[in-house]
Amino acid sequence: MDVAKKIVLVVLDGGADRPTVGGKTPLMAASRPFLDHLATEGILGIMDVIAPGTPPGSDTAHLSLLGYAPEEVYTGRGPFEAAGVGINVRPGDIAFRGNFATVKDDIVVDRRAGRISDTHQLAEAIRTHVHLDCEFIFKESVGHRAALVLRGERLSHMIRPTDPLHVGELITRSTPLKDDDSSTRTASIVNEFTRQVHSILKDLPINRERERHGQLPANTVLLRGAGAVPHLMPFEQRTGLKAAVIAATALVIGIGKLTGMQYIPTQGATGHVNSNIEGKVDNVNKALKDHDFILLNIKGADEAGHDGNFDVKSRFLSHVDRVLSKLDIDDSVITVITADHSTPVSLKEHSGDPVPFLIRGKGVRTDQANEYNEFYAAQGGMHRIRGLDMMPVLLDLLGLRKKFGA
Amino acid sequence: MDVAKKIVLVVLDGGADRPTVGGKTPLMAASRPFLDHLATEGILGIMDVIAPGTPPGSDTAHLSLLGYAPEEVYTGRGPFEAAGVGINVRPGDIAFRGNFATVKDDIVVDRRAGRISDTHQLAEAIRTHVHLDCEFIFKESVGHRAALVLRGERLSHMIRPTDPLHVGELITRSTPLKDDDSSTRTASIVNEFTRQVHSILKDLPINRERERHGQLPANTVLLRGAGAVPHLMPFEQRTGLKAAVIAATALVIGIGKLTGMQYIPTQGATGHVNSNIEGKVDNVNKALKDHDFILLNIKGADEAGHDGNFDVKSRFLSHVDRVLSKLDIDDSVITVITADHSTPVSLKEHSGDPVPFLIRGKGVRTDQANEYNEFYAAQGGMHRIRGLDMMPVLLDLLGLRKKFGA
Repeated sequence: MDVAKKIVLVVLDGGADRPTVGGKTPLMAASRPFLDHLATEGILGIMDVIAPGTPPGSDTAHLSLLGYAPEEVYTGRGPFEAAGVGINVRPGDIAFRGNFATVKDDIVVDRRAGRISDTHQLAEAIRTHVHLDCEFIFKESVGHRAALVLRGERLSHMIRPTDPLHVGELITRSTPLKDDDSSTRTASIVNEFTRQVHSILKDLPINRERERHGQLPANTVLLRGAGAVPHLMPFEQRTGLKAAVIAATALVIGIGKLTGMQYIPTQGATGHVNSNIEGKVDNVNKALKDHDFILLNIKGADEAGHDGNFDVKSRFLSHVDRVLSKLDIDDSVITVITADHSTPVSLKEHSGDPVPFLIRGKGVRTDQANEYNEFYAAQGGMHRIRGLDMMPVLLDLLGLRKKFGA
Repeated sequence: MDVAKKIVLVVLDGGADRPTVGGKTPLMAASRPFLDHLATEGILGIMDVIAPGTPPGSDTAHLSLLGYAPEEVYTGRGPFEAAGVGINVRPGDIAFRGNFATVKDDIVVDRRAGRISDTHQLAEAIRTHVHLDCEFIFKESVGHRAALVLRGERLSHMIRPTDPLHVGELITRSTPLKDDDSSTRTASIVNEFTRQVHSILKDLPINRERERHGQLPANTVLLRGAGAVPHLMPFEQRTGLKAAVIAATALVIGIGKLTGMQYIPTQGATGHVNSNIEGKVDNVNKALKDHDFILLNIKGADEAGHDGNFDVKSRFLSHVDRVLSKLDIDDSVITVITADHSTPVSLKEHSGDPVPFLIRGKGVRTDQANEYNEFYAAQGGMHRIRGLDMMPVLLDLLGLRKKFGA
């Protein structure tokens, strides 16, 4: 079989958009000599990562792109964040994303505790002094972020988490979303966690110190994204491909880890527009030597989309084009460029617009679409597929799909 | 209603491919004045005969194209092969494809018994002397091929067949794939069949004779493609169309027969690139007089694909173009040209790439795609549909689809 051997899947997080300035999207306005070169050699299309008109989360989107039906495995973002910050979660664990935050009289004053950067001592105090009616693992992450995992019998993700999502509101009292013993029990464990955390953190010297310096104390942890850790068949077992994930954000790293991929860290990779994406591309080139599948997530465009900044998003995509041109890929590598979702600057949020994609490598049919952007992708020879179709299409290009029938 | 009255569905078996020589597919490299003429007058599109990235078998593909969901009716290829070689199978029968083969000490020496051509006496010996714990029908086919049908109560297709698929391996001992009485019983019947067949064939004069001439004896029958004969609602009952099948391969003939089509044989139709496809086209023209639907399968391109021979495949498709130009079709006949699957010469196997298709006839919208090949089909006005969508689209052009709603 004369087929390509490897796959590089490049996800420009939030990289798609709507026409805004001069009828152009940030990607249309960007300088893209390299991506257009790939588009010329390859085939384009548009993709409903979940379904037409459904804005995907980054979590459900990446699951779909990797071939895991989110309807079957996804109950919340917590499990992937927890795995991404380095907790060895197990199927059945209940996991949450957490924010160190500031409350006063139970009202949320700041959801990020004044963008606190070092929470190690606070987390250590929680680990040492909190005692719950089940095993728990708490781990701090970048900035104000953290993750909580509850482990044991009779636990459920069907509870209302404690983060009210807006300042000026009361911290939410967790309540069961299902009328059963495990949900009731889990809600009460979560409320007990919140009570103990506040009582431990509020008098901690580090918080007294912050207040003396006019900084907001990190005197609570707000929880959201409750989810049960799913059993995901390892990606290598499903596909036969030895896989690596190269990403900055805990979520994508966590999805990689939970599907058994090797996580290859990159120094200076921040997930922001100033991230060290050159280092990530270097890591892709190195990883290609002993991996068959590499998921590269580049986050900056999503951030610029959420900030509503057209110019920053467009400039970042031009920068991405320059850096991706250093990818060490030939015909033997099926290269995919796509986005996990659109994050229109006009919306500052994810939208349900389809995302563009291109596929290039040995055996790929070509088309007349020679630019990589939303406009040309919609004229591409792949037409319109769903996110869950992507992995079968890529595996088929490697000759790895099983025939249905004879 | 001013609509077309008849349908000719031309399946160029394995006729689609990937860009290979000079970035072209065999179909792109072929001379196609007639097909391009149809493309100019008609509309093009690409089709996932099963689903994106799923390589179809010829069996599941033809079922899909005719509107029978393979997920519902397909358990294995045996039933269609058995019907195709002329066995009157009944729903519930368990059927297999068989090969006369050569074993020595239970190890497969040749899966085709030295490409034996006349197996009538061998088959007759099996019919006369084999006695099983259920009714059975055994029939020889072209060359080394044959089919076996088991009939009766407590039978199952959930068994491992006996063909190891590779020479140098032990003939497979059939085992149940499901832990129930009927699967266990069927596996043991199949093993008993294998035992008796070998003991009958090994000493048969015709085999002694072959050995004296330095030929391999046909001393066993290897079974594969176990399947339960499905109940398929007759095509005419479903569509109102009196249908005929014109094909060389037992599989396609069998699918036609099992859906109640008339099989119209063609002398010299072999399924190879040297087949009498002129005769098949003559038969289509004759059949059009008293049939409403004709399935014409032309097999050669698939064979050339499996052989990995670009030039043979491309030349054969040019030949097909010339011969199809003799089709006696006007606007009153909806003519469809498509493939059941791609068989890329670079893969020598079926792939999951979409296949091109064109539809031409009264009422068909046109598009700007004026060449029949993978590249232009991907620009066609039909965009991308699934195999199961094809029959509803065609029936609708005949005004035969029932309105959903009022």
